[in-house]
Amino acid sequence: MTLDGVGGAPIPWEDRPVGSSSVVWRSSRNPVIPRDLLPRSNSIFNSAVVPFGDGFTGVFRVDDTVRTMDLHAGRSRDGIAWEIDPKPIAFLPADPRVAEIQETFVHAYDPRVTWIEDRWYVTWCNGYHGPTIGIAWTQDFEAFHQLDNAFLPYNRNGVLFPRRVGGRYLMLSRPSDSGHTPFGDIYLSESPDLVHWGRHRHVMAPIPWTWQSTKVGAGPTPIETAEGWLLLYHGVLTSCNGFVYSMGAALLDIDEPWKVIGRGRDYLLSPQVSYEQVGDVPNVVFPCAALVDAGADRVSVYYGGADTVTCLAHAHLSELVAFARGG
Amino acid sequence: MTLDGVGGAPIPWEDRPVGSSSVVWRSSRNPVIPRDLLPRSNSIFNSAVVPFGDGFTGVFRVDDTVRTMDLHAGRSRDGIAWEIDPKPIAFLPADPRVAEIQETFVHAYDPRVTWIEDRWYVTWCNGYHGPTIGIAWTQDFEAFHQLDNAFLPYNRNGVLFPRRVGGRYLMLSRPSDSGHTPFGDIYLSESPDLVHWGRHRHVMAPIPWTWQSTKVGAGPTPIETAEGWLLLYHGVLTSCNGFVYSMGAALLDIDEPWKVIGRGRDYLLSPQVSYEQVGDVPNVVFPCAALVDAGADRVSVYYGGADTVTCLAHAHLSELVAFARGG
Amino acid sequence: MTLDGVGGAPIPWEDRPVGSSSVVWRSSRNPVIPRDLLPRSNSIFNSAVVPFGDGFTGVFRVDDTVRTMDLHAGRSRDGIAWEIDPKPIAFLPADPRVAEIQETFVHAYDPRVTWIEDRWYVTWCNGYHGPTIGIAWTQDFEAFHQLDNAFLPYNRNGVLFPRRVGGRYLMLSRPSDSGHTPFGDIYLSESPDLVHWGRHRHVMAPIPWTWQSTKVGAGPTPIETAEGWLLLYHGVLTSCNGFVYSMGAALLDIDEPWKVIGRGRDYLLSPQVSYEQVGDVPNVVFPCAALVDAGADRVSVYYGGADTVTCLAHAHLSELVAFARGG
Amino acid sequence: MTLDGVGGAPIPWEDRPVGSSSVVWRSSRNPVIPRDLLPRSNSIFNSAVVPFGDGFTGVFRVDDTVRTMDLHAGRSRDGIAWEIDPKPIAFLPADPRVAEIQETFVHAYDPRVTWIEDRWYVTWCNGYHGPTIGIAWTQDFEAFHQLDNAFLPYNRNGVLFPRRVGGRYLMLSRPSDSGHTPFGDIYLSESPDLVHWGRHRHVMAPIPWTWQSTKVGAGPTPIETAEGWLLLYHGVLTSCNGFVYSMGAALLDIDEPWKVIGRGRDYLLSPQVSYEQVGDVPNVVFPCAALVDAGADRVSVYYGGADTVTCLAHAHLSELVAFARGG
Amino acid sequence: MTLDGVGGAPIPWEDRPVGSSSVVWRSSRNPVIPRDLLPRSNSIFNSAVVPFGDGFTGVFRVDDTVRTMDLHAGRSRDGIAWEIDPKPIAFLPADPRVAEIQETFVHAYDPRVTWIEDRWYVTWCNGYHGPTIGIAWTQDFEAFHQLDNAFLPYNRNGVLFPRRVGGRYLMLSRPSDSGHTPFGDIYLSESPDLVHWGRHRHVMAPIPWTWQSTKVGAGPTPIETAEGWLLLYHGVLTSCNGFVYSMGAALLDIDEPWKVIGRGRDYLLSPQVSYEQVGDVPNVVFPCAALVDAGADRVSVYYGGADTVTCLAHAHLSELVAFARGG
Amino acid sequence: MTLDGVGGAPIPWEDRPVGSSSVVWRSSRNPVIPRDLLPRSNSIFNSAVVPFGDGFTGVFRVDDTVRTMDLHAGRSRDGIAWEIDPKPIAFLPADPRVAEIQETFVHAYDPRVTWIEDRWYVTWCNGYHGPTIGIAWTQDFEAFHQLDNAFLPYNRNGVLFPRRVGGRYLMLSRPSDSGHTPFGDIYLSESPDLVHWGRHRHVMAPIPWTWQSTKVGAGPTPIETAEGWLLLYHGVLTSCNGFVYSMGAALLDIDEPWKVIGRGRDYLLSPQVSYEQVGDVPNVVFPCAALVDAGADRVSVYYGGADTVTCLAHAHLSELVAFARGG
Repeated sequence: MTLDGVGGAPIPWEDRPVGSSSVVWRSSRNPVIPRDLLPRSNSIFNSAVVPFGDGFTGVFRVDDTVRTMDLHAGRSRDGIAWEIDPKPIAFLPADPRVAEIQETFVHAYDPRVTWIEDRWYVTWCNGYHGPTIGIAWTQDFEAFHQLDNAFLPYNRNGVLFPRRVGGRYLMLSRPSDSGHTPFGDIYLSESPDLVHWGRHRHVMAPIPWTWQSTKVGAGPTPIETAEGWLLLYHGVLTSCNGFVYSMGAALLDIDEPWKVIGRGRDYLLSPQVSYEQVGDVPNVVFPCAALVDAGADRVSVYYGGADTVTCLAHAHLSELVAFARGG
Repeated sequence: MTLDGVGGAPIPWEDRPVGSSSVVWRSSRNPVIPRDLLPRSNSIFNSAVVPFGDGFTGVFRVDDTVRTMDLHAGRSRDGIAWEIDPKPIAFLPADPRVAEIQETFVHAYDPRVTWIEDRWYVTWCNGYHGPTIGIAWTQDFEAFHQLDNAFLPYNRNGVLFPRRVGGRYLMLSRPSDSGHTPFGDIYLSESPDLVHWGRHRHVMAPIPWTWQSTKVGAGPTPIETAEGWLLLYHGVLTSCNGFVYSMGAALLDIDEPWKVIGRGRDYLLSPQVSYEQVGDVPNVVFPCAALVDAGADRVSVYYGGADTVTCLAHAHLSELVAFARGG
Repeated sequence: MTLDGVGGAPIPWEDRPVGSSSVVWRSSRNPVIPRDLLPRSNSIFNSAVVPFGDGFTGVFRVDDTVRTMDLHAGRSRDGIAWEIDPKPIAFLPADPRVAEIQETFVHAYDPRVTWIEDRWYVTWCNGYHGPTIGIAWTQDFEAFHQLDNAFLPYNRNGVLFPRRVGGRYLMLSRPSDSGHTPFGDIYLSESPDLVHWGRHRHVMAPIPWTWQSTKVGAGPTPIETAEGWLLLYHGVLTSCNGFVYSMGAALLDIDEPWKVIGRGRDYLLSPQVSYEQVGDVPNVVFPCAALVDAGADRVSVYYGGADTVTCLAHAHLSELVAFARGG
Repeated sequence: MTLDGVGGAPIPWEDRPVGSSSVVWRSSRNPVIPRDLLPRSNSIFNSAVVPFGDGFTGVFRVDDTVRTMDLHAGRSRDGIAWEIDPKPIAFLPADPRVAEIQETFVHAYDPRVTWIEDRWYVTWCNGYHGPTIGIAWTQDFEAFHQLDNAFLPYNRNGVLFPRRVGGRYLMLSRPSDSGHTPFGDIYLSESPDLVHWGRHRHVMAPIPWTWQSTKVGAGPTPIETAEGWLLLYHGVLTSCNGFVYSMGAALLDIDEPWKVIGRGRDYLLSPQVSYEQVGDVPNVVFPCAALVDAGADRVSVYYGGADTVTCLAHAHLSELVAFARGG
Repeated sequence: MTLDGVGGAPIPWEDRPVGSSSVVWRSSRNPVIPRDLLPRSNSIFNSAVVPFGDGFTGVFRVDDTVRTMDLHAGRSRDGIAWEIDPKPIAFLPADPRVAEIQETFVHAYDPRVTWIEDRWYVTWCNGYHGPTIGIAWTQDFEAFHQLDNAFLPYNRNGVLFPRRVGGRYLMLSRPSDSGHTPFGDIYLSESPDLVHWGRHRHVMAPIPWTWQSTKVGAGPTPIETAEGWLLLYHGVLTSCNGFVYSMGAALLDIDEPWKVIGRGRDYLLSPQVSYEQVGDVPNVVFPCAALVDAGADRVSVYYGGADTVTCLAHAHLSELVAFARGG
Repeated sequence: MTLDGVGGAPIPWEDRPVGSSSVVWRSSRNPVIPRDLLPRSNSIFNSAVVPFGDGFTGVFRVDDTVRTMDLHAGRSRDGIAWEIDPKPIAFLPADPRVAEIQETFVHAYDPRVTWIEDRWYVTWCNGYHGPTIGIAWTQDFEAFHQLDNAFLPYNRNGVLFPRRVGGRYLMLSRPSDSGHTPFGDIYLSESPDLVHWGRHRHVMAPIPWTWQSTKVGAGPTPIETAEGWLLLYHGVLTSCNGFVYSMGAALLDIDEPWKVIGRGRDYLLSPQVSYEQVGDVPNVVFPCAALVDAGADRVSVYYGGADTVTCLAHAHLSELVAFARGG
C-alpha cells in the first residue's frame, strides 16, 4: 500500500432521486451508522471518513453509555458498512512535552481527518481545561501521534487545509466559550510547524435572520477547486426551542483563504427527516467529512444526525461550487 | 365576482371521527400543505385562508431555504389543495409616507386576513427595527396596499375585528420584546383610520400552572356570535425543553370586546401528533385563520404545525361557543 | 385480603429479547398507558405501581387538558391494562393541622408509593408556595390520609425507604428551586414520626461529563438486597436543546444509607425510542416504581416517557445489583 | 397671570466655573432637592420643571418610603428652593373612558412637562399592565386632566414636542420590555388628537462601544433652534457592575424630526460626583427638563442623580447646538 | 453569674435626634465595629449581640482577607466597644452524629443568638453542600455545642423564637437556592427537639413594587409583646444596578405565629449613609439582633452596613409595634 | 541614553505607615493620576509604567468622553506627576501583513509593558472581532511597531515574561468570552518569534469561596526572584451587586513557569477606600505594572481604581515573595 491520501475504491454514491432538483440529496441507506453499532455506544456521529488503501477508514466520535465522548478508528470496504474499534484511540505523545497535556484527558469529539504531504492529520475538539483543538498524525490508523493543542481554550471545529499555503499550514477554527456557545465565527490561523500558531484572521461571521444566524463552524476539509477552496460548513439558528444545525457552502480565495469570495445564502441540507429531527439533540445536521471523486464530479458528505447517528449525502462537485459562488 | 368576504364554495370539512368526543378534531389530510410545496420553501405555516369567489385564497408564511420569512399569496378550489405563488407579495405603499418604512424591510410573518366593509385587510408581524404589526389591504389578492405600521415595536399577533365597533376599527395584539418573548398578554386598540391607534385596553393574561402559563396571543379573526366574539387563540407553556404552543378559546363582549365574558380552561388542541411534535420548532399548534359556515354550524381552522407545515382542524361553532363560555 | 404490601399476582414480565445484552429492556407493549386513557387526560406518566391483593394498584400523575397536575388512583389485574379513576384523589387531613396546608392546594405530581409496616405511604411533589414533598397513607387506595409536608420548599422526588432504619423513617429527596432546577443532589433525612425531619445527609451528586451531569433524583422505593439498598434513579444531562433524562442505579449501605457503596457509571435506559424521544417534554425516561419478584430474580420498572405516557421495562435483580456495584 | 408657557422669572443660573471648558457644568448648589424634602419621601429625582407665572412649577417623581413611585406638583420662586406637595397628583379623567385605565393604577414616574398652544401637557411612565406612556394636561398645576395612554406597553420616556409639526402632535418614546430593559432606541410617533398615535418612525439607536451602547431615551422637551430640534437625551453603558447613565445631545430635522441631522459623540455629563455616583441606583445622570433663556443664550437642565436626588446643570444654548452638530 | 438571658447592663442608647420623626434612627457612633477590627478581618457585619452578665456578648460574622466567612465570639461592656476573638468559634458536636456534618465544613455566616429556657442558641447559615441552617448552644460563649442542621439546603436566615409555643420550638427561615437567590419568602417550622423539623408554614412573601419586592428574611429574634411577636426583617428590591437591602417590621400572632397580624408598608431603615451605601456590597442594611429594654421602651438594633461593618440603630418599642401594626 | 530596561531614577516610594502590618500599603498621594488629566479623558487607569532614562515612561489606558478605549504614551520624572500625550498611540505595522488586522481597529485597553533583551514590548487587549492580545515593540515610546495578535479571540490580560525561558518567549493570558466574562483561568503560551504561539499550559484557576472565586488574570510583568517568578495578579469575586476585583500574589517555577509553587490565600489589596470603591466600575483594584528596586527591597505597584483613576501601592519585595509562598 502506498500512502497517498487518495485511495483506490470508488466513493459511495447514489444518483439524485428522480424529480429532485436539490444540490444535495440524502443516501437512501441513512443512517449508515446506527447509534448502537458498538455494544456500549450511545451514539456515533460527527465523524471523519477518508479513502484508505482499497477502501475507507475513519475516525469516529463515539459517545458511550456513560456519555463519555471519545474517538475510535474504523474501517469499511464501501463507506457504508463499517467496522468500528470498540476501544478508543490511545494517542501517543508525538514529543515528550505532549505527555503533559495528556495527563488531564477529559474527552475528545467531532474529529476531522486531512491528508497533508505524507500522512493523515486528525484534528478534534479536545478537553483541556475547556474545549480546544487537538492534533495528531497517523500513517496507518493504528498508531496516532498526538501533537500539542493548537490553541488556548475555548475553541471547537478545528479543520486543517490539505496542503500548505505560502509555506504555512493553515487551520480554520471557531473560538467558543465554556458551554453551549451562543455565538461563533470562523477564523484562519497559520503555523510553520503545526505546534505554534499565529496570523489569526477572521474569515466569516453568522448572517442575521437566516439559518446561520447564531454561529458557523467549518465542516469537512476544504476542497481545492479551480475557483477556490470549497468550504462546507454548519450554521446554527436559535428557535424558541433550541439550536437548529444546517449545512451550507462557501468559496475561499486559493492564496488568501481568509477572504470569502463566494457564499451560498441558502442552506444545502437542514434537519427534515426523522433521524435528523429526533435523537439526543433534535434538529442537527453536522457535516465532518467529504469524499471527492473530482473526475466523476461527485462528492459524498458524512454528517451527524441529531447528535446520534452518522449519515451520508451526495452532490455533484460542480454544482456545489456553483452554489457556493452565491449570488 | 362580487366582493363580499363570504365566498361561494363550501368550506373544507370532515365529520368528527367516530368515537371521538373532542370539540376540535384534526383533518385526516394533514398536513394539508407540506413544507416543500414551493421549490425553495423551507416551511409553510401560520397562514391565513379566506373564502374568495368560488374558492379560497390566502396569505401564507413561507420561510425559504435561507430561512428568510416572507408572505406569499395562494389559491385553492377546495381549501385543501393549494397553489402558492413562488414570489413573495410586493406591498405597494397605500400613501407616500409608507414608502419610508418600506426602505428597511427585514421580514414578514404570521399573517391574518380579515374582510372589513369592502376589502380584505392583511395584518402580519413586520420587521421594522424589531417586530411590529404591518397592515395592508387588497381587493384581488394581487395588488396589496400597505398602510403604516399600527404600533411601535415590539409587537406580534395583530388581529383585526371584522367590523367597526362604536365606529372604530379594533385590533388585538400582543406586546412583545426583541427575542423569543417569554411573556405576553392580549390587548385591544382602537383606530378611526387604521393608521392612528389608541384607547389601548388589556384583554387577557396567561393563567399560571396551565397550558397557557407563559403567554397568549390572538389567532384567527374573531367570529361574531350571538353570545359574543369568539376568539380562538394560542397559549404557551414553558417546559424544561422549551415552549409548547396549544390552542384555546374565549368569548369577548360584543360591544366592549376588551371584556372577557368566557374563557375555556382546557386547550382545544395541543401538539400530539407527529407533524405538530416534530419539525423546525417542536411542539407547536398555532392557529391563524378560521373558515365559518354558521348555517351548517361548522368551523374549519388553519393552523401551523411545528413551525413547518400548514394543518386543518374542524369543529362545530355551537360547541366552540359553549366551550369558550368556560365554567 | 390481608394487607402485607406484597400481593399475590405475578409481576408483569417479558424475557430479554434474543440478541440483547442490555441489563434493562423495554416492554414490547409500551407505552402501557397512553396519554389519553381518560377523557380529559393530556398525559399519564411518572407514576407509582404496587402489588395489591391479587392484582396491582397505583397512584398516577395525570395532567388534564388544562395541564393541571393531579394524582389519581388506578387498578389493574396484570399491571399492563389499567383502569384509572377519572377524579383525582381527595386527600383527607390525617390530623386537623394538615387542613391548614390543604387550603392553598396548587398541584400534585410525580408520586411514589411505599409499604411500611402496615400501610402504604404515598409521597409526591406537592405545591405549597413552591414544590415540596407531600406525604399520605392509605390502606385501601380509596381513603388517603395526608400528613404535613415533610420539608420546606423547594424540593422534589421524595422517596421513602420501605422500613425504618435505626428506628427512624428515612426519606430521600432532591432540594430544588422554584423553576426547572438546573442542579440537584440526592439527600437523606430521618424522622421519628413522618412529620418532623432532620439528620439531613448528602447522598450523591451529579457526575460531570456524563449522562447525569446536571442533576440526579431518586426513582422507585429503594430495594433491599443482601448487598445494600438498590437505588434506581434518574440523571439529567443538558444539551444545547434542553434536558435529557435517563435512568441509572446505585447501591447504598444497608445501615447508613447515605453512604454510596456502588454506582453504575453507565445509564441503564436513556430516551432512544419514539415514545421517550417525542412528547410534551422530548427525551425523558423517568422511573417512579419497581415491582420486584426476588424469587424469580425479576424487576419490572414503571417509568414515564417524554412526560407523556407510562412505560414498562424489565431486568433481573441480580444483574441490576451487579451493575450498581459499579467498577 | 397669562398662560403662555414662558414665565416671567429669570431661570436659575451660575456661570461656567473659571478654568472649565466643559459645555455643561454642575450647579454648586447640587443636589438642589434632597431625597428627604418630604416627610415620607425616599427620593425625589427625574423630575420636570417649567416656568410658571413669576416663578417655576414642576411635576416631581417622588418615591416614598414604601418605594411607591408617584408624581407630585411643586412650586419655586427661583427654581432652586422648592416646595413640593406632600400628596401625589390625583389625575382626573379627561373623558369618561379614561376612568377605565385608572382603575388599575400601579405607579407613575419620570415625568416631563411641555407647553403646547394653550396648556401644559404632562407625560410620564404609567403602570398599566406594564410601563407605558401616560398623558395629562393642566392649566394651573392643580387640576390635571388625564388622557388615555398613548401606547401599548411596554414603553418609557415619552416626550412631547412643544408644537405641532405638519399639523400633528409628536411624541418621542423608547419601546421597552417588562423589566430593566437592556436595549432601547428612540422612536417618533404622530397624533391628530393626542389619543390615537401612528406613523411611528425610528429616530436613533445606541452606538456600540460608547457611553450610549446599551440604550438611549429622550430627556427634556426638544428645544426649537434655527438649526433643528435640540434633543438632550440619556444614554446607558453596561459595565460588569451595572448600568451607567449619562447625558448627550442630538439635532433633529425641524420638519421631519425623525431624521437625525447631528449627534454629539461625547457625553455632556456623566456620573462623576458623589450625588450621581452613590445612591439608590449608583452612577445615574438622568435629565428630564430644561429651562431656556434663548436671549441670554442660557439653558439650565434638571436631572436626577443616582435615582435619589434632583440636580441642576447649566450650559450655553449656542454651545449645546454646536456640540449636537457632532463631527 | 446567673444564666438568665437578660443581663444586667443598660443597653446602648442614644435619644432620637432633635427634629427627626423617624421611628428608627442611627447611632452617631456608627459604624460601631470597623471592618478591620481584627488583624486579618476583611469585614465584620450581620452579627448577633445579646446581654450577658454585666455586659454584652455576641457572635460575629467575620470575613477574613481570604474572604472566608466564619463566626467569632466577642465581648463588650457597653455594646459599643468590642473585643472580638481573633480565632473562629470551633463548634463541638452536641452528639456523635453531628461530627458527620462537620467533616465538610465550608463556611458559616449571618448568625443570630436566642436565649431559650436555660441556654443560648446560635443559628447561622451553614455551608453543607449548599447553604442551610446550623444550630448550636452555649452557656458561656466559650464552648459551643453544635446540633444537626435544621433543614436541607438551600436555606438562609434561620431565626429561633425565644420560647416554645404549643410545646414546640419554632424557627423562621427563608428557603433559597444555591446562588444570590432572587426570590425568598419567610416560613415557620416546628420541632420537638431542635433536631427534627416539620409543620412548615408559609409566613410572608415579598410585596411587588415596594422596597421588599424581591425577597424578605427574618432579622433579630422575634420580640414578644402584648400585641404579638414583633418581627424585624430585611426586604430586598432589585434595581438595574443590583439588590438594595432595607429593614421593616411585622407583627405575628402570639399563638399561631405563621399568621401575620400586622405589617408596616414602609421601610424602617434603608441605605442612605455612606457606610451603608459603599462597601463590599453597596446598599445593604441587614439587621441581625435587637437589645430590648421593655421597661424603658427602648430597642437597639445591630445591623450590617454594606456587608462590611456593624452598625447600631435605636427605636422605641411602642413605636415599632405601632409601626408594625401597619395600616 | 542607553537602552537597558532599568532606568536611573529612584522608584516612587513611601514607607509603610506606622501601625500598619500590611504587606502592601497605598500611596498617600492616590489617586496619582486623576480621571480628567487630559481635556477629553473620562478616566485613566489600568496602565503600565516602566523606568526609562532618568525618569519613567508608560502606556496608559485612556477612555475618552465618548468612552472609546485607547492607549496613550506618557512621561514622568518621579512616577507620580505625569504628562500624558493627548493623542493615542498610532501603531505602525511591524511587517506588511499586520496592516490587515489594523483595518478594523476597534479599541485597545489594559496595557502592560515588558523589557526583553533590547526593546520594550507592549501587550494589550486588542479588539479584533472580539478582544484578543495585541503586541508591539518600541525603543523610544514614540514609534510603536505592532506585531500580529498573539491569539484568537477571546482573550484578555496578556502579559509577557521579561526574558526567554528555554529559548522561547512566554506569555500569560486569560481566555475569555465576548462580554463581561464570568469565568477565567491563567494560561501560559510559548513562541519562537512572538508571532506564532503554542505549547499552551494551564497555570492557575479561581479558588471557590474566596476573593478570587470568579476569575483570575495576570497583572504586572512577572518579577524574577531567587525563589521563582513572582506574579502579582487580580482575582474577582461576584457579589449580588457585581464583581469585586482584588490583588493577590503567586510564585511560578523559574524553568517551568506553568507550575505554581506558591500562592497566597489572602488578597494583598482589595477595594476599601473611596477611589477604589466609587467610580465608573465600583469596587475595582486592578494592578498592571510594578517598579522594582531589588537592592532596596522595594516594589511599587501601579493599579487602576474603580476603572477610573490610576493609583500606587508599595511593598517590600521580600515580603511579597514570602506572602506568595502561601502556606
